[in-house]
Amino acid sequence: MPPPLRFEIVAEDGDARVARLSTPHGVVETPAFMPVATFGAVRGVSPDELRALGAEILLSNTYHLHERPGEEVIARAGGLHGFTGWQGPWLTDSGGYQVTSLADRARIDEEGVAFRSPLDGTLRLLTPERAVAIQEALGSDVAMVLDECRPHAEADGSAARSAMERTLRWAERARRAHRLERQALFGIVQGGLSPALRRESARATVSLGFDGYAHGGLGLGEEPARREALLAEAAAELPREAPRYAMGIGRPSDLLAAVARGVDLFDCVLPTRNGRHGLLFTRSGILALRNARFRDDLRPIEEACDCPACTRHSRAYLRHLLHAGEALGSRLASLHNLRAYLRLLEEARAAVRERRLAALHEEVAALAEVRL
Amino acid sequence: MPPPLRFEIVAEDGDARVARLSTPHGVVETPAFMPVATFGAVRGVSPDELRALGAEILLSNTYHLHERPGEEVIARAGGLHGFTGWQGPWLTDSGGYQVTSLADRARIDEEGVAFRSPLDGTLRLLTPERAVAIQEALGSDVAMVLDECRPHAEADGSAARSAMERTLRWAERARRAHRLERQALFGIVQGGLSPALRRESARATVSLGFDGYAHGGLGLGEEPARREALLAEAAAELPREAPRYAMGIGRPSDLLAAVARGVDLFDCVLPTRNGRHGLLFTRSGILALRNARFRDDLRPIEEACDCPACTRHSRAYLRHLLHAGEALGSRLASLHNLRAYLRLLEEARAAVRERRLAALHEEVAALAEVRL
Repeated sequence: MPPPLRFEIVAEDGDARVARLSTPHGVVETPAFMPVATFGAVRGVSPDELRALGAEILLSNTYHLHERPGEEVIARAGGLHGFTGWQGPWLTDSGGYQVTSLADRARIDEEGVAFRSPLDGTLRLLTPERAVAIQEALGSDVAMVLDECRPHAEADGSAARSAMERTLRWAERARRAHRLERQALFGIVQGGLSPALRRESARATVSLGFDGYAHGGLGLGEEPARREALLAEAAAELPREAPRYAMGIGRPSDLLAAVARGVDLFDCVLPTRNGRHGLLFTRSGILALRNARFRDDLRPIEEACDCPACTRHSRAYLRHLLHAGEALGSRLASLHNLRAYLRLLEEARAAVRERRLAALHEEVAALAEVRL
Repeated sequence: MPPPLRFEIVAEDGDARVARLSTPHGVVETPAFMPVATFGAVRGVSPDELRALGAEILLSNTYHLHERPGEEVIARAGGLHGFTGWQGPWLTDSGGYQVTSLADRARIDEEGVAFRSPLDGTLRLLTPERAVAIQEALGSDVAMVLDECRPHAEADGSAARSAMERTLRWAERARRAHRLERQALFGIVQGGLSPALRRESARATVSLGFDGYAHGGLGLGEEPARREALLAEAAAELPREAPRYAMGIGRPSDLLAAVARGVDLFDCVLPTRNGRHGLLFTRSGILALRNARFRDDLRPIEEACDCPACTRHSRAYLRHLLHAGEALGSRLASLHNLRAYLRLLEEARAAVRERRLAALHEEVAALAEVRL
């Protein structure tokens, strides 16, 4: 059986690269943004719409799907591809982050994470082996190992080391447990805010051998410069020819900074979450669309945008829908923000091909956080 | 200036008729179902999708739009057509029903309905003239007069008569106030549950002269047979060559019964409201999709249905989305139910053309309320 992924680098600009990531369910041009389909759907947006926006790969949350409808239901329906109707590639997380942050009284020990299901109150255990088994049942194209991810505040020197070392032991168990040949498995670099630990984690994770590597435990409020240094530190140990994924990062300029450190895959809930709250990403800044001064504004969110909201509707109408709590408002706002993120990555790929990523990053960093 | 509406009857079956209703914004084949766009949008469904489902005319609620965003905002954006992006015909209600049922402490006297806005607490007055002015600002193709609509429990003999007579006086004031020549104005028949009052109301409303006539104050829990008799009673006084609208009715078999009594236009929130609650209309009954036995059901909601939910997704997936509270679930359920209603009216038109409406009604009445 051939390896589940092929990763062909087609252009480079410093450490940044453009590549074709071939999966059993199609090709993804990287760097790529993965819209987050928490429950197997992206917040009111249909698979056809996601495809039209330019999405090529989706992420879903193992923990949420395990709770509801349960991975057996999805397995019987032909995995995520058959169940949801998104026939392109899927990446699933391990569930560890959600268990720790959402479930009641999660307790982590060497075996795994014990937690009480908020849905039915039963006591459950998520182990490295179980996280693999659930993701095999979901049938994603890329599965993630279970890692121990701590908030920065809790991850001082010794806690960061112990979480990083446990993540390595769990990664090894996940690797041994993983059977599904057409599914890739990614290891996760941990190490908190310590450059040395990040480097050590990356080196040891690579020596275990995975189909790709993720930077974990970032995007949790750390300074951008610090994050970029940590990404660079780990990247120095990662094989050039394997895809790299920065989990949960983040704002538009954060994405481009990570692309410059060789990251190929991103996911983030900001486009849909901010959309629902009326915060619209544009290339010249963030539009707080609920603001009264947009009441009579008949322009689209963004003149140059080709999304279904901008080509058909005005700021005034979208503002009204958001104020009225009408579902079409969140949906159109999400469509716009998803398109903004997907287009940003299109621009990043073009910039890498033309060796001008630094200029694009500078431009986006200067404007993207401006409040319009 | 030509009259705002043209109504050409093209086929008849007893009192039922198929007609072409020409408005300034396009032609509607009647009998027609008007999806309800309460806030200028149909519950997460876009104008393009409504068109694809077969909708030809939408209804919006004057009271809701008056509260938010305010009719001046909509007027400045080019009326409902410019503001919402639905370029086809619009019908607006008068706002009277919503004011009475939703606003705080509504008080009705000869002048109009005084109410406290739930949005900002200010005291407001909706008069027949004001209801016309708001609808003129909204720019709908069909406006409705303000009527006095009472719950059946309150509408005994004398109350029903006084509400019916006040509705006539208000209709006359509305007619005098109405200036917008490209907008049609419909009168409303009242009279509670009294056949004699209904007939009297219809005769007097017709003598005032409107572009069309509505049956008001029905669909409020009365027995179907009683409602059908009341519709027939009023219909005997209505001019054959004017469109007739049964406000707020109702279930699939109710619609067909009303078509048989010569009704041409319908609106109802059941398709979207029931959709959100997981109740799906099919020709063989109602599917309570949240039910556990659909957990692994990979069939579409309805085999023969051509809606975006049925052509792309399974019952199992839709059930999961509804349980997870994922917005795509309500949206797909609404799309299906709207399509079911729009198709029912397509079937009704075909049945009238082929003079077999009674058989269709019998078939639908026998099945449509079955719980699958």
